[in-house]
Amino acid sequence: MTHHHSTPTASPVAPRGPRRGLGVGELRLDGGFWGALQATNADATLRHCLDWMEQLGWLANFDRVADGATGGHRPGWQFSDSEVYKLLEALAWEHGRTGDAEADALLRKVVDRVAAAQDEDGYLNTCFGHAGQAARYSDLSTGHELYCTGHLLQAAVARVRTVGRTAGEDDTLVDVARRAADHVCREFGADGRDGICGHPEIEVGLAELGRALGEPRYTEQARLFVERRGHGTLAPIALLSPAYFQDDVPVRDADVWRGHAVRALYLAAGAVDVAVDTGDDGLRAAVERQWTRSVERRTYLTGGMGSRHQDEGFGDDWELPPDRAYCETCAGVASVMVSWRLLLATGEVRYADLIERTLYNVVATSPRADGRAFFYANPLQQREPGADVRPDAVNPRAEGGVRAPWFDVSCCPTNVARTLASWQAYAAFVDEAPGASSDGVVVVTLAQYAAGDLRIVLDDGDEVALRVTTQYPHDGRVRVEVIGVPERPVRLRLRVPHWADGATLTGPDGSTTTVGPGWADAGTAQVSLPGHTVAVGDVVTLDLPVGPRLTWPDPRVDAVRGTVAVERGPLVLALESVDLPEGVLLEQVRLDPAVAPRAQGDGAVVRAVMVPLPGAGAGTPPFAAAPMSDTGAAARDLTLVPYHRWAERGPSTMRVFVPTARHEESR
Amino acid sequence: MTHHHSTPTASPVAPRGPRRGLGVGELRLDGGFWGALQATNADATLRHCLDWMEQLGWLANFDRVADGATGGHRPGWQFSDSEVYKLLEALAWEHGRTGDAEADALLRKVVDRVAAAQDEDGYLNTCFGHAGQAARYSDLSTGHELYCTGHLLQAAVARVRTVGRTAGEDDTLVDVARRAADHVCREFGADGRDGICGHPEIEVGLAELGRALGEPRYTEQARLFVERRGHGTLAPIALLSPAYFQDDVPVRDADVWRGHAVRALYLAAGAVDVAVDTGDDGLRAAVERQWTRSVERRTYLTGGMGSRHQDEGFGDDWELPPDRAYCETCAGVASVMVSWRLLLATGEVRYADLIERTLYNVVATSPRADGRAFFYANPLQQREPGADVRPDAVNPRAEGGVRAPWFDVSCCPTNVARTLASWQAYAAFVDEAPGASSDGVVVVTLAQYAAGDLRIVLDDGDEVALRVTTQYPHDGRVRVEVIGVPERPVRLRLRVPHWADGATLTGPDGSTTTVGPGWADAGTAQVSLPGHTVAVGDVVTLDLPVGPRLTWPDPRVDAVRGTVAVERGPLVLALESVDLPEGVLLEQVRLDPAVAPRAQGDGAVVRAVMVPLPGAGAGTPPFAAAPMSDTGAAARDLTLVPYHRWAERGPSTMRVFVPTARHEESR
Repeated sequence: MTHHHSTPTASPVAPRGPRRGLGVGELRLDGGFWGALQATNADATLRHCLDWMEQLGWLANFDRVADGATGGHRPGWQFSDSEVYKLLEALAWEHGRTGDAEADALLRKVVDRVAAAQDEDGYLNTCFGHAGQAARYSDLSTGHELYCTGHLLQAAVARVRTVGRTAGEDDTLVDVARRAADHVCREFGADGRDGICGHPEIEVGLAELGRALGEPRYTEQARLFVERRGHGTLAPIALLSPAYFQDDVPVRDADVWRGHAVRALYLAAGAVDVAVDTGDDGLRAAVERQWTRSVERRTYLTGGMGSRHQDEGFGDDWELPPDRAYCETCAGVASVMVSWRLLLATGEVRYADLIERTLYNVVATSPRADGRAFFYANPLQQREPGADVRPDAVNPRAEGGVRAPWFDVSCCPTNVARTLASWQAYAAFVDEAPGASSDGVVVVTLAQYAAGDLRIVLDDGDEVALRVTTQYPHDGRVRVEVIGVPERPVRLRLRVPHWADGATLTGPDGSTTTVGPGWADAGTAQVSLPGHTVAVGDVVTLDLPVGPRLTWPDPRVDAVRGTVAVERGPLVLALESVDLPEGVLLEQVRLDPAVAPRAQGDGAVVRAVMVPLPGAGAGTPPFAAAPMSDTGAAARDLTLVPYHRWAERGPSTMRVFVPTARHEESR
Repeated sequence: MTHHHSTPTASPVAPRGPRRGLGVGELRLDGGFWGALQATNADATLRHCLDWMEQLGWLANFDRVADGATGGHRPGWQFSDSEVYKLLEALAWEHGRTGDAEADALLRKVVDRVAAAQDEDGYLNTCFGHAGQAARYSDLSTGHELYCTGHLLQAAVARVRTVGRTAGEDDTLVDVARRAADHVCREFGADGRDGICGHPEIEVGLAELGRALGEPRYTEQARLFVERRGHGTLAPIALLSPAYFQDDVPVRDADVWRGHAVRALYLAAGAVDVAVDTGDDGLRAAVERQWTRSVERRTYLTGGMGSRHQDEGFGDDWELPPDRAYCETCAGVASVMVSWRLLLATGEVRYADLIERTLYNVVATSPRADGRAFFYANPLQQREPGADVRPDAVNPRAEGGVRAPWFDVSCCPTNVARTLASWQAYAAFVDEAPGASSDGVVVVTLAQYAAGDLRIVLDDGDEVALRVTTQYPHDGRVRVEVIGVPERPVRLRLRVPHWADGATLTGPDGSTTTVGPGWADAGTAQVSLPGHTVAVGDVVTLDLPVGPRLTWPDPRVDAVRGTVAVERGPLVLALESVDLPEGVLLEQVRLDPAVAPRAQGDGAVVRAVMVPLPGAGAGTPPFAAAPMSDTGAAARDLTLVPYHRWAERGPSTMRVFVPTARHEESR
């Protein structure tokens, strides 16, 4: 595993702030939850995505442009180029993380076809601007040209972050991206066209590339796009309001996320990058404000965002229907992007908590176990069993309860691929900035837990080496051994999730203390030695309570009144019809919250009663003069499974929020 | 009021079955709930609709075709012609009901402009088939050409039903419609194009016209369209399934309504007409089956249909969210059309019950008190106060909580207008068929209640005259006096709604008996004289309990678990924020079902506690480790108002289903 020494240490996001995220090569996972998903992603999903895009002609679109053969039928939506770019980003992370030569070769092949389609002046898009196509930027509202470019730039950033700046400078993907970015700056700069893209993404792409290449012009262009938004300049889309693409209120003035969730979140991610890199605290505070209200009032227990199918968008405050939850997989990916940026910018643990919730219950829920089918929407209740999908079928978007191999609009599979391939980036961050809060001490913070070896290369080339041993989230024990430290003192911090009531930390001297939610300072486990730093050989053990627990909705979340959910560590659990006794319907189940749920495998066993269902209808709407009796038959045990694995055993109905036998929340 | 003697007696629907509905001229309303709405419709709404369509150029579209000036910009959607036709239908009913010469003159003016746009071969559409336009029927999925024609035919039917067959034959509107129908039969007949329209409506239009003019070719063409549907022949619309326009399953095979609600219901109405007029009992039974499951599992307490904004469509069984309820006004109108047809076809009271529920709580809810603004969607919960709408603003479709003067897609105002103008048609029906269940006795059944004079002209020209005195629904007493009867014996029946527990009927002899839900036979109030018929001078009095009552959701309706609604007679009530004490939020209210609601005006007073709301969020999604306390402050009285009048006092939040202080439904 020497290859990962040679990889650069930057994360997908390296803000100018004091903290930097982990480089994908700095952590070698030793199997486990994420290691397994990452392996399936590498072995199955990357090729799966490539094959589908080849088969559907989305890759050939680039060849047609290169051959001057445009004008005829062009397969795919106007944004299909972006799927190719997201796959390139995934391949870049995969190669950077593992040194996998095949991933690198695959990437180079695709990049050559993409490069051949780039116009002289750097413009690169297979749907506009060529013979028989609409003119460049003739439809900023729905054309997605800058959106596609943004994903191209993010792919190039992954390349820079993995093969390194020097190599990057003569890397074809990076060169293509640089020319595309220069074109955008010329076209949309301060003296250029006063336009923005209907789908944000160019902002984060430009900001990341500017940071990766040290090119302030790109950051400035990102800033321009962020500032231009919210003034109603985009041509309206029929029956949709300007809030759909966040052109209703300027970013720095908005209080909450609204409209299309992925658009809102990609925009927020770009805004944080711009705020951090330009020192714009007002803009940063605006996104923090939006995050707070949106998370506290418009976010599902799974971390999913998007309450409406109509516009794939956020709902009003407290509007969180479980059955019609959209919770698009891509919105989960975008939410992680935003929270990660805010975590690095502020160091606040709540951002790491939401990242964990979203990774386990949205991102990990999308791919089927074999990595060859995906959820697009992630509802928390399934009323009708999802249909089986033919392996060769292109699915309409967001068909309920079905993981499908590919979609008409297929943004999710490649988004899952690039996120899983770069999971390491979210696992830890380092603060070695002189004069930072840590007083020059190198502070290493573990934000997510997985078994593996960390080898963190510091700015001066010194290394911090740690070995993490854990079966998290199956088991709550996380053992961290210090393998190597530099001359400089190093402090180690571990995240105690907000749900981990009663967590304990055992320090190098064997003394155990209870630690509350937040950043547990492994160096101060010995309370007598505050600020104590770690040394080679030190072992600290964090014990997190991951037993099943009941979780109750805020009474303002009307759609799940009178229900309760079961969680286990970071995992949301679900009751699936395939686990019910013969002849029992999901509608009959009433969970008895007076009986504590027991752990079973990675799920739980709960006590429930099966109530009789009302008889035949009265030829009227389903409402009656007297309350229907909820008095149940004999109580019995039912098994709940991790939500992220539901619908793996054939079509089923499912619910995360189970009605209670007694409505506890009204006690 | 002599004019209404001269009007024909047919209703908008006159099936070949034994029962016929009331002609609009056969009942003169004496003010009251519907009389007032009808007057506002006549005095304000009809002109309001005409002015908007003139101002927006939807009427000028016909002039452009007549002048051969097509090809430039054409205002309005592809279906804007249909709004003109629905207004023509409303004007025809208004003139037919009242003899209002101005309505007749207005109608003739508009008809002349429409007629001038008809092509030689009878084709009539301002969006297709002329210079610079797409070819005729080149987009059956979304072009709406046959849909528009269907509304033209329904307008002509209203003309035939009111100015009479003889006059009708040289009435321009009827002539235009006849030529349009002949064109459709040639184009889409058995030997013609094997196509259907993406939006059903032509079916019901052809069937009604065939019946009105005694033209079996039209009925046969309607039958063809009904039979052709459900075989996936329509070109798919991106991201929508064939169920969206009911092209997934043949009508006679379907078990439930699905997809776009207005489309599903217009189709069902046409199917009933075809089934009745062709004696196709299997087709009729299919629609009855669909009605039963859809009403019992996919219909709101208001009678509203359509649980999803995404496709303006039905949801799954039990999917009835109050906040995202679509309940399009037009779907309410269409539901009344279907139930009325099934009522006449079967005589079952449940259809009249749903008609009443829908008329009072959907159709009557749409128009503002002044008749110049309308609800498009009719949600049962409003989370954010609706914005005020400028009187000159064209609204996007279905903006929450706002009655708007006009919409971008403006199907609802003209649909309300034509329904209110013909309300009489739904009030009663007559059965005088020899050999029918009534053994040759003329049976007059009152299906809806309003004060006024009925003068029913029988087939032989004899009349049955009744005077109804009531303040229903404000008061539950309905007094019916027999003014005139023919030689033949006449039996009188009155509807006892399903909710009217403890209704009593006082017969001509003064004896009072309790009558259960169903058809109360006023002639058998004297149990000693079964089959007793009524005579001039007889007075029967029905007393319906219209006091406030609690209504509980079926436990399978997850979205309103732990809540209760309040109804009063046929009126659904609502709690509106403008009626809350200073500083109290709707989210804080918990209704105490142990205290019976009291009547107040047309609303009710309930006992409720105001619970404290949870404090500031924890930086996590809105779910907690412990149930939030619902223990309230001191109880106080709150006023609920009729749902149909909500949002008349400025922007507000509102809910029909109020959380209970104790979750009664789980007792």
